[in-house]
Amino acid sequence: MDLVKQLDHIFNPRSVAVVGASANPEKVGYMCVGNLLEGGFGGRVYPVNPGLAQLFGLKAYPSIGAIPGGVDLAMVAIPAELTLSTIEECVAKGVKGTILISGGFREVGTEIGAELQAQLKDIASKGGMKIIGPNTLGLINPRAKLNASFQYTLSLSQVGNVAVAAQSGGTTIYVVHALTNHNVGISKAIGLGNRCNLDFDEVVTYFGQDKETEVIALYVEGLEQPQQLIKAAQKVIKRKPIVVYKGGRSEEVGWATLAHTGALAGKYEFYKTAFHEAGMIVVDDITELVDVAKALAFQPAAGGNRVAIFSVQAGPGIIMADKCHERGLKLAQFSSATKSRLKQLASLLNPVDNPVDLAWKSDEFDACREMLKVVLDDDGVDALTVAAVFYSTNMEVMRAVVDVARGSKKPITVCLDSPRGAAYAEIGALESNNIPTYPLPERAITGLAGLVRYGEILSGGGGGGIRTHGSGISEQRFSRPSP
Amino acid sequence: MDLVKQLDHIFNPRSVAVVGASANPEKVGYMCVGNLLEGGFGGRVYPVNPGLAQLFGLKAYPSIGAIPGGVDLAMVAIPAELTLSTIEECVAKGVKGTILISGGFREVGTEIGAELQAQLKDIASKGGMKIIGPNTLGLINPRAKLNASFQYTLSLSQVGNVAVAAQSGGTTIYVVHALTNHNVGISKAIGLGNRCNLDFDEVVTYFGQDKETEVIALYVEGLEQPQQLIKAAQKVIKRKPIVVYKGGRSEEVGWATLAHTGALAGKYEFYKTAFHEAGMIVVDDITELVDVAKALAFQPAAGGNRVAIFSVQAGPGIIMADKCHERGLKLAQFSSATKSRLKQLASLLNPVDNPVDLAWKSDEFDACREMLKVVLDDDGVDALTVAAVFYSTNMEVMRAVVDVARGSKKPITVCLDSPRGAAYAEIGALESNNIPTYPLPERAITGLAGLVRYGEILSGGGGGGIRTHGSGISEQRFSRPSP
Repeated sequence: MDLVKQLDHIFNPRSVAVVGASANPEKVGYMCVGNLLEGGFGGRVYPVNPGLAQLFGLKAYPSIGAIPGGVDLAMVAIPAELTLSTIEECVAKGVKGTILISGGFREVGTEIGAELQAQLKDIASKGGMKIIGPNTLGLINPRAKLNASFQYTLSLSQVGNVAVAAQSGGTTIYVVHALTNHNVGISKAIGLGNRCNLDFDEVVTYFGQDKETEVIALYVEGLEQPQQLIKAAQKVIKRKPIVVYKGGRSEEVGWATLAHTGALAGKYEFYKTAFHEAGMIVVDDITELVDVAKALAFQPAAGGNRVAIFSVQAGPGIIMADKCHERGLKLAQFSSATKSRLKQLASLLNPVDNPVDLAWKSDEFDACREMLKVVLDDDGVDALTVAAVFYSTNMEVMRAVVDVARGSKKPITVCLDSPRGAAYAEIGALESNNIPTYPLPERAITGLAGLVRYGEILSGGGGGGIRTHGSGISEQRFSRPSP
Repeated sequence: MDLVKQLDHIFNPRSVAVVGASANPEKVGYMCVGNLLEGGFGGRVYPVNPGLAQLFGLKAYPSIGAIPGGVDLAMVAIPAELTLSTIEECVAKGVKGTILISGGFREVGTEIGAELQAQLKDIASKGGMKIIGPNTLGLINPRAKLNASFQYTLSLSQVGNVAVAAQSGGTTIYVVHALTNHNVGISKAIGLGNRCNLDFDEVVTYFGQDKETEVIALYVEGLEQPQQLIKAAQKVIKRKPIVVYKGGRSEEVGWATLAHTGALAGKYEFYKTAFHEAGMIVVDDITELVDVAKALAFQPAAGGNRVAIFSVQAGPGIIMADKCHERGLKLAQFSSATKSRLKQLASLLNPVDNPVDLAWKSDEFDACREMLKVVLDDDGVDALTVAAVFYSTNMEVMRAVVDVARGSKKPITVCLDSPRGAAYAEIGALESNNIPTYPLPERAITGLAGLVRYGEILSGGGGGGIRTHGSGISEQRFSRPSP
């Protein structure tokens, strides 16, 4: 079966079987069935356990083979030594994909574990079935109300356009939760674990085709064949941005990654340069992954790196300017026409250079809108960011931002804080109009930097920013993106 | 009057007058009176405005001089050109400190503005009164329920041990809100604005003496006499840590800082090195300021940089190890006794090296507690961090952390996420036991790095980490801390 079609079945199953279903609430097999039901999944759910008559009112089956109808997706939570025959049964049943939650394979570092995993891979690959994992969390598709994982809080994810794939189930959860807490919706999320016969390159190819996905966020520890991901990414990045965090960075902790999902992490600089040159957006921590993915989920790429800053308070504007400098963005130079128009509109007390200080005009919607519009229309400006401390009168600035954003193709980010959630409604108003909002000035610039970087990728290939001299990357091992 | 006593009167006034009090809800003079009352301030509040009979049911006075009782603190929100006579009246009344909210002084860059500010300074200094500002936000003292500012959300701050001083009112608000949103309480916070005759060195000296303050957080843009702050800080840092973010970092934005509060920002490297050598903890953004201040507010300094990591999910443990490497922390090497004890306690499936993987024991309180205790008791371990994805069974790990923390002098941080606030109670349980909790793995390490850095400062002077060669700092201009 075509890979994209197969993964589409896996993420949109009509039916899910849970092998190892259990009536004990502390067992993974209980949690998986519970999460499918409580998450609101509308397809059929089949608990499988020979010792069980029913679970949550659903009839239980002694084996996958005994299920009367077809099974698109199976979840398996049983001891490693029992998985071989189950995987064989799944193949025989025509299951499209099996989430193998069980641990005890290559990640434990024993020969037996590695051998068992190789056998599973062989059976699945010959049978045309995908194994997700082993040693993994599962996957979610919020649009289908599918929480096929043992983590119930993933059902709290909102529907959106960011797809997440991570080598670690724990990191998948952290990333999805952080996106959720920052009002960013998920199209799909998946933990890949040991990547038995479903790897990053295949998932990236699928997300590249998936209509519901517009941004791809990855957490990668180590890959056996990094060039496969590089190649897959190169085919996708002109249509959809890929943000990647590479974990397992220092030699000191290389063993930890090795032990975890069974692949050598390798030198960080090697991956960083290769990913960057392939046109991926490489980030330095999960916070940055979230901030950049959020900007890309809401706003278009920037046509250049010249940023205009508006701030109701000067200090946050200065912090934004600092962060522009540190992230390779430029403060836009306004034209003399822009400057004289701003002088007419601004308070006499305020500087009208960049950053623009809105201190004495923040309660005047018309003046704010006009100042923002003049600056957005300036050919020397590629992107805009606006900061205001949460205060009712300052919210005229935010109304003006929403207004000018409708008519502009230049990207905009906003910094608006919300003590104890006080600005909940105001942030909602901005974000329902596709303005990504950040709680601190530096983070609004992190988001903008992601949009500038993606603009560079779209306009000319990925590898502008990082020099390859001395990085140890061989051109023979990695093909470069075409310019 | 002694500086510390005077500032104590200013932060704990028995009475506050608001000059420029107004019945118009959009005026700053209205907001200031409203915030004093709604914040719950228990002292006397005197609205001052010759055109006003009463405000919020309080009798209004035509001038400061007409108020019958004494006035400890005055807030002034009137046009700049009217401030001279008001400041003279405040001095005559014996006011201890005046918050001059008004703008239009040195920050606007005109000769008239600078001259006016110089005159104000002269009057206040001769009269023994402190001016906070001009061009500022005000101050808060949550313990006294004092919100002497125009920002009502500052009344949401919780009582705690972190003092904040910032050159920018907007940044003061962002920092206080961010601390509030991360469950960190405030002892005092103040916006210093143009620093007419109250500057950072004096505030640091006061916070150094203040019994309610245990951590000092600063946002500095530029100083006329940086050596004054350096000297004041050196006297405080062995008792209380000082965390500082220096804004106005690039040459490109130097003008912005100049315009803002009237002082040349100067080269960032110059400040960074000088602050570091003085024993301050220099941070790179507001997020880091908050994360480090939080760790210092809850936990003791570390005796060294050898970190033990426990993680219920391997991925977050790997991210933590990466961040340790990047922040100059070491993964602790466990003794062979520790390792064999861990082997007895851990699941057969888990590596017992550092990071310790708790995956199959996270629901067993006794096993977790014992594993944590064994590691904390290892002489090769200086600090501990623990990560778990929020899930009910994983919370046994967190209960165990609280238990072992009671008997340990080594610092601990925790990473626990909370999708849509789901872990509110669990985070509260940790933090009421002084365990600082962070939503992402990298941030728990940022906090720990602050505790390690403070330990270095306590044990041997501040300047270990950054070399001074080529930094352009002259020893004649800055005295070094004694070793």
